[in-house]
Amino acid sequence: MNYYGNPITRLIEQLSALPGIGGKSAQRLAFHIIHMPEEKVDALAEAILAAKKQVRYCSVCCNLTDEDPCPVCANPKRDQRTIMVVEDPRDMAAYERTKEYHGTYHVLHGAISPMTGVGPQDIHIPELLRRIDGSVDEVILATNPNVEGEATAMYLSRLLKPLGVKVTRIANGVPVGGDLEYVDEVTLSRALEGRREM
Amino acid sequence: MNYYGNPITRLIEQLSALPGIGGKSAQRLAFHIIHMPEEKVDALAEAILAAKKQVRYCSVCCNLTDEDPCPVCANPKRDQRTIMVVEDPRDMAAYERTKEYHGTYHVLHGAISPMTGVGPQDIHIPELLRRIDGSVDEVILATNPNVEGEATAMYLSRLLKPLGVKVTRIANGVPVGGDLEYVDEVTLSRALEGRREM
Repeated sequence: MNYYGNPITRLIEQLSALPGIGGKSAQRLAFHIIHMPEEKVDALAEAILAAKKQVRYCSVCCNLTDEDPCPVCANPKRDQRTIMVVEDPRDMAAYERTKEYHGTYHVLHGAISPMTGVGPQDIHIPELLRRIDGSVDEVILATNPNVEGEATAMYLSRLLKPLGVKVTRIANGVPVGGDLEYVDEVTLSRALEGRREM
Repeated sequence: MNYYGNPITRLIEQLSALPGIGGKSAQRLAFHIIHMPEEKVDALAEAILAAKKQVRYCSVCCNLTDEDPCPVCANPKRDQRTIMVVEDPRDMAAYERTKEYHGTYHVLHGAISPMTGVGPQDIHIPELLRRIDGSVDEVILATNPNVEGEATAMYLSRLLKPLGVKVTRIANGVPVGGDLEYVDEVTLSRALEGRREM
């Protein structure tokens, strides 16, 4: 039923179609937007349109960007001989925040997942293979440490090794600052396997 | 730090300024929006702008509406002699969903709250008083059953009674379908006080 009039109802519908926003949150957001100053509402709508219209895939690493190549690929200070493969731009941002990684990235935009019908052809693997032309020494597989991420890492490793490039996988282990008591058995086993001399 | 380029970063900032949307959700929403078909993104932005630009307060009941007076106030089938006072358009929608109430509403857009500096002058009380001109028999106070809502109901009751109008308050009691075990003591006491013969 339409208790609020068409513009509000339409906004609530649009908002509740977004992921993680249910009917109640959509209502709350809609009323918040209606009570926002007009220039802020304009800025919000403009940001939505601009993000959609200006953002493209980087032609090198497939990261989302408004400049092509993206700032990381275009940065001469980054080590172009190392590529870290991630599933998602957010994973890239997570590694950027560490400020410890100075190579480039490749963003797959997904992981191989037979369960949801995502095959190797559905993620940006060809673009990665095209980059392995002798100018790359190492590919670091930083897909998520879950079933899909592991399967993707395994698949990529088999594909990349014959091309004569070093293929590595980020380490499994106990998270820093964590409490051993709450760490699952598989992670504990992996941490033990991967132990290093001090 | 700007890991995503300006349009995405700006969108994330805009989204995380909305209530209940933290940094992580804003990122997730931003990436979802970027991957949405262009016409859906346009529809979302348009709905935001339209809601802000077309929605006004109803000149009678202060509900948010794109037509003035709002559909409830303009409906000749609604009992104009009864006004239900609510804090928020969502409360009005909640009562509309019951399909049991056939009077009109008055939306205060807030409640008196000395803690957050909201006084009687900050909510739509004058508009309510203006409606008490002999054409109204009963004012039902349906503000929230919390401290602010009770204070507001008390304040309005003192203001309205001298005007010769019947003032009522919605009942406190145990919620239907609830489990007594989980109902707080105050509600249980109120339910006992308000008991009715069967």
